[in-house]
Amino acid sequence: MPMKIIVVGATGTIGKHITAALQKEHEVITAGSKSGDLQVDITSPESIERFYEQAGKFDALVSATGSAYFGPLNTMKDSDFRVGINSKLMGQVNLVLTGQHYVNHKGSFTLTSGILSEDPIVLGANLSAVNGAINSFVKSVAVEIDNGVRINAVSPGVFEESPDYFPYFAGHIPVKMDRVTQAYIKSVLGALTGQVIEVY
Amino acid sequence: MPMKIIVVGATGTIGKHITAALQKEHEVITAGSKSGDLQVDITSPESIERFYEQAGKFDALVSATGSAYFGPLNTMKDSDFRVGINSKLMGQVNLVLTGQHYVNHKGSFTLTSGILSEDPIVLGANLSAVNGAINSFVKSVAVEIDNGVRINAVSPGVFEESPDYFPYFAGHIPVKMDRVTQAYIKSVLGALTGQVIEVY
Repeated sequence: MPMKIIVVGATGTIGKHITAALQKEHEVITAGSKSGDLQVDITSPESIERFYEQAGKFDALVSATGSAYFGPLNTMKDSDFRVGINSKLMGQVNLVLTGQHYVNHKGSFTLTSGILSEDPIVLGANLSAVNGAINSFVKSVAVEIDNGVRINAVSPGVFEESPDYFPYFAGHIPVKMDRVTQAYIKSVLGALTGQVIEVY
Repeated sequence: MPMKIIVVGATGTIGKHITAALQKEHEVITAGSKSGDLQVDITSPESIERFYEQAGKFDALVSATGSAYFGPLNTMKDSDFRVGINSKLMGQVNLVLTGQHYVNHKGSFTLTSGILSEDPIVLGANLSAVNGAINSFVKSVAVEIDNGVRINAVSPGVFEESPDYFPYFAGHIPVKMDRVTQAYIKSVLGALTGQVIEVY
């Protein structure tokens, strides 16, 4: 049965693949900061609330969005670190905290973390922390969320379509977009919950 | 050789044991929000900066402090979640970001996370996320921090001296304070770095 699926970050590097794959058999509502069917500023809880009021009830939300600070530790400040806290972490957390009141029975949330929580690189302290928080958050939400709702995180390695990042990821094997896309599909259409689906 | 060791949260449930153990052979500077040799409000980057200016150069900092929101997911809001973000997470992150400029060559930082990052309970979503962030943060800082400085996190289960929490930790085996204390000693006096020292 076709589901109503919201993809936040639908025009991003991975979001466009997720959207294309899900649109074949489901109703996909695309969302982004500037583009898509609906606009949402994930750094603003108020914007997220308005976004869900517009989107209405849904079966699955995929978050493939959120930025973080990428830069040297020895000059890193509170305000730098807050970039990832306010965007990739609290943006995705608030999509769940608010979205739990809009998601249908047996619906799901799929968030995005990343390899740096486990396999760190220089300049990546903010992303590592944010990714680790997201992974533990989904484990915790899964044991408490009402109404049979599921939640997982996809934790990808560096994308094959993001060559600008390759120099920072020495020795990392870039992951194929199709494998990453399938991880989101597994979370949305499968039965897993509380899992970190690693793609690397 | 005796070291100069700062313990933040020195009068807390575990902090007092860490302080007692380290004081036998080292110079321990105790710190807390209201008590100790030095006062510091870890939710304020400015307070942390002043704290380090007063403390001066040091060999090891142990952080056994930081609070988080403990409450139901279905009413949790951005402002609730920010309690743990601003205190236990950013408080400890800022102790490292600022402290990296004060710590001696081959010094160390030891932070505190906790079992809920891996083994969640109802009401614990904020603590789970914060603990997961701290664990990944230390892994990342360890690969980048200058000057031979080490960093680890101690991740304890529920303390035997915190019986008020037992009802929330069904089936968890409370951990003995001596075992937890030894984990901090291992981090401070040993050679590990980038490790999450689990005590549960």
